[in-house]
Parts: sequence; C-alpha cells; structure tokens
Amino acid sequence: MKAEIITIGDELLIGQVIDTNSAWMAEQLNQIGINVHQITSISDQSQHILKTLKEAGNRARIVLITGGLGPTRDDITKDALCQYFATRLVLNQEALADVMRFFEKRNIAITELNRKQAELPEDCKSIPNPIGTARGMWFEKDNTVYISMPGVPFEMKQMMLTSILPLLKEKFSLATVIHKTILTTGLGESFLAARIEEWEDNLPAGVKLAYLPQPGIVRLRLTGKSCHADKLKNDITDHTNKLKALIPDLIFGEDQDTMEKVVGEKLKAKEESLSTAESCTGGYIAHLITSIPGSSTWYNGSIVSYSNNAKSTLLDVPHELLDKHGAVSKEVVEVMAKNVREKLKTTWSIAVSGIAGPDGGTIEKPVGTVWVAIAGPNLVYSEQFLFGDNRERNIRRSAIAALNLLRIRL
Amino acid sequence: MKAEIITIGDELLIGQVIDTNSAWMAEQLNQIGINVHQITSISDQSQHILKTLKEAGNRARIVLITGGLGPTRDDITKDALCQYFATRLVLNQEALADVMRFFEKRNIAITELNRKQAELPEDCKSIPNPIGTARGMWFEKDNTVYISMPGVPFEMKQMMLTSILPLLKEKFSLATVIHKTILTTGLGESFLAARIEEWEDNLPAGVKLAYLPQPGIVRLRLTGKSCHADKLKNDITDHTNKLKALIPDLIFGEDQDTMEKVVGEKLKAKEESLSTAESCTGGYIAHLITSIPGSSTWYNGSIVSYSNNAKSTLLDVPHELLDKHGAVSKEVVEVMAKNVREKLKTTWSIAVSGIAGPDGGTIEKPVGTVWVAIAGPNLVYSEQFLFGDNRERNIRRSAIAALNLLRIRL
Repeated sequence: MKAEIITIGDELLIGQVIDTNSAWMAEQLNQIGINVHQITSISDQSQHILKTLKEAGNRARIVLITGGLGPTRDDITKDALCQYFATRLVLNQEALADVMRFFEKRNIAITELNRKQAELPEDCKSIPNPIGTARGMWFEKDNTVYISMPGVPFEMKQMMLTSILPLLKEKFSLATVIHKTILTTGLGESFLAARIEEWEDNLPAGVKLAYLPQPGIVRLRLTGKSCHADKLKNDITDHTNKLKALIPDLIFGEDQDTMEKVVGEKLKAKEESLSTAESCTGGYIAHLITSIPGSSTWYNGSIVSYSNNAKSTLLDVPHELLDKHGAVSKEVVEVMAKNVREKLKTTWSIAVSGIAGPDGGTIEKPVGTVWVAIAGPNLVYSEQFLFGDNRERNIRRSAIAALNLLRIRL
Repeated sequence: MKAEIITIGDELLIGQVIDTNSAWMAEQLNQIGINVHQITSISDQSQHILKTLKEAGNRARIVLITGGLGPTRDDITKDALCQYFATRLVLNQEALADVMRFFEKRNIAITELNRKQAELPEDCKSIPNPIGTARGMWFEKDNTVYISMPGVPFEMKQMMLTSILPLLKEKFSLATVIHKTILTTGLGESFLAARIEEWEDNLPAGVKLAYLPQPGIVRLRLTGKSCHADKLKNDITDHTNKLKALIPDLIFGEDQDTMEKVVGEKLKAKEESLSTAESCTGGYIAHLITSIPGSSTWYNGSIVSYSNNAKSTLLDVPHELLDKHGAVSKEVVEVMAKNVREKLKTTWSIAVSGIAGPDGGTIEKPVGTVWVAIAGPNLVYSEQFLFGDNRERNIRRSAIAALNLLRIRL
C-alpha cells in the first residue's frame, strides 16, 4: 500500500522550521505496513497545493497532508481542498461546539477567526482534534484517500494515533513490515560492508539492508515486508542472529539503544557505578550520560580537567608526568582514570585526553590523537585512537570510543 | 531565482532519519536571494530519482540533491545521474587522490568500494569534499543547474559553504539580500513581540522580521531584499540600532554568536578565566564551552558533581548544608561556585544545581527549579529560575541562564 505525505507551509521552504512531522508519520505508517513513496514540502499557495494533490493522488492510494489549517490569512489549505474536491465550506455544528468548549475552558472570548475554524468542506468526514481547534478532514476521490491534518506536531500526532491510523487499518488490508536495527562501532561503513558482504548477499527476497553512519557508529537496518507475518518474523530473527554471530565484536546495541544507554543499563544491572575524567571531550561524556533520566543512580560525576593545572589540582596528576609524557599520553590518562575512580569511589571510571583540534597537533601527536583509559576493580586499561581533524567529530568519536571500551569490559 | 531540493534515501521515507538537510539548505539559499519552491524526499530507486529530477528541473533553475553517494549498494544516485545526463562513470584522478589521502591519514588500507567513490560522471564539474570521500557533482542541462551532494549533514554543509554557495552567487546575478540577526534571552516569544510591536510595525517595505525561538533564546532575524544594496544596508542598520536601544537588557549577541562564545570573548579580552561546577546541567556547560576551539586559554575545567557525595568530596560542600537546605538551594550552589573558583584559581566561576526532571520534583521544588550562582572577585551572586518539565530543555535553559548571569557581570 503506497502513501504520500504533503507538508504545507512557507516556513518549511525558508528553513525556519524543520519538517519533523513527515518522519514521524512515515514511521507510524511503516509500522502498519504502509510505504511512504514520497514526501513533498510546498508553499501556502493555492495552485501549488492543487497541483501537488493531483500528482500525489495519481501515484498513491493514501495522501496525508499537514499544515495550513490555522486561523490566519496565510492558512489556505481548506479553501484549496474545497476547490480540489469541488465542494464548499459549511459550518460544522460539532466542530463549532468543540471550538467553543476549547475557548471556554481557557476563559477566552471566541472571535470570528476562531468560528471560521468550525467551517469544514461539505464533502468530508471530519476528524476530531482533542487538543486544538482545527479538525482533520478525510476525503475519498478516484480510489484515493486524502487526509488533511494541522501542522502543529502535537495535534497531528494525537489525531494520527487516535483516529487516522485505526481508520487506515480498518479500510485497507495491509502487509506486515518488520524493522530491525543493529548498532555497530569500531569499523567504518565500507570496511563493515566488506566484512558482511556474503551475509548481505544471502538475505532473503523482501528483506533489505541499509547502512546508516554517524560519527563513530554505523547502524545496520534490516527491513522486511510480507503478507506472511510469521515467516517474515522468523527470517528477520534468523538473519539478525547470523549477523550477531558474524560481528559480535562490533555490535553494541539494537534499535533505539545509544552507547550511553547500553553502558548505563549494564552498570545498573550489576549495581556498579561510574565516574569520568575528561580533557578533550570537555564534559561531553558527562553530558551524554546525564541526558538519560535517572542516570544519577549509577553515575557520580566528572572532573573536566581542561588545563594541566586542573589535572594536577583536581586529579593529582604529578607535574613530572605531565612534563615528561605530555597531557595526551598513556601515563597521564591512566593516572586520571585511577584517581577519579578513587576520589568518587565508583566501581569504574573512564578518562580521556586528546587533541580535538583544529590546533595543538604535532608531528608525533597529530590532531585527532586521543588516549582513553578505563579503571576498574584490579584493572587499568588504556588505548590510543587516531581520529580525523574535525573538532566536533573528534569529541563525539572520542566519547563513543571511551564508552565502548568500558562496555566491552562490563 | 527559483530552486528545488531533492533529498534521496529510504531512511527518510521510513521515518528513521528526519530530513534536517533541507531546512538548512533552504535557509542558506534564502540568504543569498534564492527561493526554495519545493522540497521532495524520495527513495533510493532509479526510476523515482529520474522522474523527480525531470519534474524539478522543469520548475526550477537550480536543483540541489543530497543523499545516495555512499560506497554501498543502496547508494545509487551516481548511476541515476549518469542516466539522466546521458554520461558514464570514469575514474577521477583528483578524487582518487583525495580518497587515498583520506584513508592514508587514518592508516587504513583502501578497498575496491572506496576506489569506486572516486568514479564520477564524465560530464560534471566535481566539487571537493574536504571531510569525506564522496565528492559533490555540478551538472548543467537545459538552462538548469543540478548539484548532487552527500547526505551526511556535516559533509553537505561544508560543501555548501565552501563551494556551492559561492559558485551559485557567481553564476546568477541575485538581488541583494541582507540578514541581521539579534540574539535575545530572558523573555518568551509572545512577550518579546508585545514589547517590540511598534518597532515591528514601522519596519520599511521589503524588510521582514522572523522570530526564531530556541530553549532560553529568541533570535530576531531581519531580512531585507532589494536591488538597491546601499539603501537596504542603511535601512537594516538603522532599524537594528533602534531595536538595540529598545531592548538592551535582552540582547546578548548578533548573527553567528552563541552565549558561550560571547562570554568567552569577554573573558579573553579582559584576560580573565572561568571554571564551572555543574549538577543538573551534568557537564553540558563545559561541553558548550569546550566546543569552542581555543577555549582552553580562558576555561580551566568543571567539576560535575552529580551526587551529594561528589559535591562534598570534590567541592567541599558541608554535609550539614546539603541536609539542611537540599542540593538545590541558594546555600549549596553558592558554596559550589566559591569552592570551584578557589580550587581552579580562576577569576570567575559558575555553579548550577537544579531538578531537570522528569523525576525528583516536590511541591516546594517542582521539576524545573534551578539555582545558579556566579562567584568572582569580591562577589557571590545567585538566582533561582523555574523552567518547564522537559529534561532536555531544562538542561539547555539552565546552561544559557547561567552563562548569561556571568555575561551581565563581565
């Protein structure tokens, strides 16, 4: 079953607003077996809307439209829809009652503009909006369903979940779609592809693989679609397991996991705790961890030692060590890890010191050189990495690599 | 001048990735006087790509394309482009040298897949990619320019800024567009709008105002477009100055400034230094600061005390103070600021303690309650804030508010 999404609004075309609606809708549709064929963002112009509706309607059996339903002058979607479906706006009593309730609840007097929101095309099924004043509209024409919704993400989502998705499932008999994402780290996209080439070649028909790279991470996404739900499920599980057996050293999580979440869950399960000492990552590891609600149960804190002075004052790194080996060295990063662990009395600690760039590199230690150490019960382990020359990516990759070193040991 | 954007990738159509590229590109194009007419997201399918290229090329004189240039099998944009422009892939020696340099620098042997990235359509101008292996491609056909770029946001942005935008400016004679952005903090969008209403009403024709809200910040962007560059420049300067006189208490920067950058520049100019002690912001302030290249000249580090134990061990906050007033209190946050300043021997310090949520709130101290303290020469100042109930936004708003408190004092 093929769908298209049309998002309407000048704000999308000048880059003022990122279209997050489409991705959310696409994900929801996919989960019930509806493929999104195309997403089109257009301006608040009548002719542009009409043309796009026609093209999308020719290609797909479901067309989802968001935006342009507000009360102000630039919102013209309703008029365009009337023109497209050769119908006219009439006052909808049910919708009017909704609008009046909405404003009464907020103790605000209703204006003519608000009343207009209760005018709906005569030839549509109207869809309730539990949290706003603009109703959704469901049209059918030439075997295609068109659904218009407000562009406010929160209102659109409510409407999709409570009305549209159930109605679509009822109307169409849909195939099953299953996604499985495997998260890897430690190998770039092309090398990973070479390593799993044979496995990829043997994927069954109807199952596709996508590589989704991020700094330090490559996500592998399997997508399967079939009318035989059970067989598909088995196929996906089977091939996921084969992949896991093939590259166990590279896999750190699945689906919605993140590196920091995986590390946190392992620590929580073992009732162990973590502290960090950060130089080149400058608090980024701490920020990743503390972005997780409840991380305070297993994370005690970080010493961000962004100067040699801070390294010696806060982490007791001896001056001689800094002078002899430099701040970016095995010796220094291991002392950082050992000492932050002792100071914060945690089971484990991570320390990072490196040259994020763009300046500070030397021939022996170019920009991108990063030392990571892990300290734990009876263990200090360190490793050197060489990343690229982009500061932002180096910070990100250092954090992922450091958390991964700990994950392997947990 | 009319442009269209085509973003290619199955991941966009299943909702796994939000298309942030389009909004960024649209904003950049707008700034040089190019209007985006339509944004179309399509799958990695040859026929779909060819059809969409044709339709976009019929409507616009500039077509920007991202995605599908990776080394793996699902990346088919290059082949589709060859078909569309009736050309073939040939090994590009310049591109090959780039790819080899890229992997040599990382001490990685090059694979056949990597080599393939250096194959480019014969009939295109190739665009360097300073940070990745996939070059951009510039085609011209029937009076329309087509530019294909990698979908990785970071690579695309670099390519746009260093090559594509300058080339477009050179090729087309574009009306002068001037943007001026004023950064404000401390007042929400609607209240700010009320305060500057009269000024906004008196903006000259051709000059538009946009409100761009972010957590804790509202950016006001003036955009003027005209064939009379000098007059436009004067108009924008004039009205910017009027705005500055109207809300001097709310303005903290201009254009590409960030709060952390503004604070850093003030400290650098005065040859003063900063340290931080973070609880609820969990290292985020340190991360913001250390994302700035060269921040080590004025920033010494942070103590991320994410537990009461860390507050007492690392920051010498007395247990009685924590017991009596709680970690989120004027008393505790002031001691945190004083002590981190002394330990790290900096001119200034910032300390933050609050309840980021979603849990941990009480009736007296609901989620969103945040205490911030500044310590400096003969000064300790603190202030309480009450933000909302979203963890991510609370962390962000706390960091902005804390840096702003220091900025005011510098």
